[in-house]
Amino acid sequence: MYIETRKRAIVKTISWRILATLTTAAIVYGLVGRLDIAAAAGGIEMVLKMIFYYFHERAWNKFHIGKHQVTPFVLWFTGLSGSGKSTIADQVYRKLKKKGYKVERLDGDTVRSIFPSTGFTKDARNTHIRRIGFLASMLEKNGIIVVASFVSPYKESREFVRELCDNFVEVHVDASVEECERRDVKGLYKKARAGEIKNFTGIDDPYEKPESPGLYLNTDEESEEKSLKKVFAHIGQFLD
Amino acid sequence: MYIETRKRAIVKTISWRILATLTTAAIVYGLVGRLDIAAAAGGIEMVLKMIFYYFHERAWNKFHIGKHQVTPFVLWFTGLSGSGKSTIADQVYRKLKKKGYKVERLDGDTVRSIFPSTGFTKDARNTHIRRIGFLASMLEKNGIIVVASFVSPYKESREFVRELCDNFVEVHVDASVEECERRDVKGLYKKARAGEIKNFTGIDDPYEKPESPGLYLNTDEESEEKSLKKVFAHIGQFLD
Repeated sequence: MYIETRKRAIVKTISWRILATLTTAAIVYGLVGRLDIAAAAGGIEMVLKMIFYYFHERAWNKFHIGKHQVTPFVLWFTGLSGSGKSTIADQVYRKLKKKGYKVERLDGDTVRSIFPSTGFTKDARNTHIRRIGFLASMLEKNGIIVVASFVSPYKESREFVRELCDNFVEVHVDASVEECERRDVKGLYKKARAGEIKNFTGIDDPYEKPESPGLYLNTDEESEEKSLKKVFAHIGQFLD
Repeated sequence: MYIETRKRAIVKTISWRILATLTTAAIVYGLVGRLDIAAAAGGIEMVLKMIFYYFHERAWNKFHIGKHQVTPFVLWFTGLSGSGKSTIADQVYRKLKKKGYKVERLDGDTVRSIFPSTGFTKDARNTHIRRIGFLASMLEKNGIIVVASFVSPYKESREFVRELCDNFVEVHVDASVEECERRDVKGLYKKARAGEIKNFTGIDDPYEKPESPGLYLNTDEESEEKSLKKVFAHIGQFLD
């Protein structure tokens, strides 16, 4: 981060204007050989260029091609373990990062690895999601796009996060429990079936589907590419 | 947040150069009345100004007056309730904000009001501080200065936060329990003495003083103004 004082900007502008005007005067003197004409050219140039520069800037400001106004937002992927939340969220994060946006990624697994003590009861999970939501809203408030992926099975805490954020986009990544269990990328369904994990969403704990999510993806039926397209079509409203 | 594509920047530069050169040529034509000289002046100007502009920028880049390079950091105030942490932290935050820095304020009371369920046992407090530390480090990583004030009585979690952050400045705001209790701004010591609050730091729970804090303030002896001066002298290293 750099901070430039206003004074520096003004002095720099003046120094350039002097240098530019002297250059013009010197060129004219070199071509015409008369000091009075060189001085007149320099003087007229200084005034005209300041006026033209101002209008040139104004004109460009009206013309928005190649310029994006970005409204920070929190893109919140919710869905069963194995639904494909993290995969899609990772892609969205990478694409945004590559395009130069300020963006942060929050993922259930990463955060849990830092706070392994977080329990799996309803209360513990709701509190956990509320805390993550607070973190997300702080980042958003500071101009940073947040791409979050958490099972976040309960409406209550998702609504809490929605309230905290200015622009909360809930993305329901839907897939049937059967399909998620078939994929079982992390082997968690097997453990849940064996009783090694208690309160596992989809097995012995409910997933409360969002009633009207900002975006609905169905990874049983849609390709990852299609899901990604839908996400970018939806968040386009914040990107320019 | 605005994002400008490189293409826009290039096209804008070219459009200005064309406008500027045509202006110069027109001025010269107006003064001298010869198209060949006007064209020559415009051509020479275009080349010279591009070269001069480059060196003008380079020269200013070597000259750092009025320009601050900011390294984000986490300024962490720790101390007893009533020691004056929040008051000093508030002032530091306000001053930094006013100077145009990107800065976020995290305060024990504010955060607890959002998560009232946070307990006061050693474990609960340590976990709470770790979570705040994670939030602080995320903000820092995204270029934002963090001014945090938490009793944070245990070394263990303060060290955890230190590890998470790139630039962690621990500020010990020291004041005797007697003095803090005399001030008792929030009436908490009274409640703790009456047994209405359990595990109150300084009364029936220990405060583990930092052994080698980045900065030591003693509000029993120093004025608020002096404390502030010490803080700004210390964080100067990150501000330019």
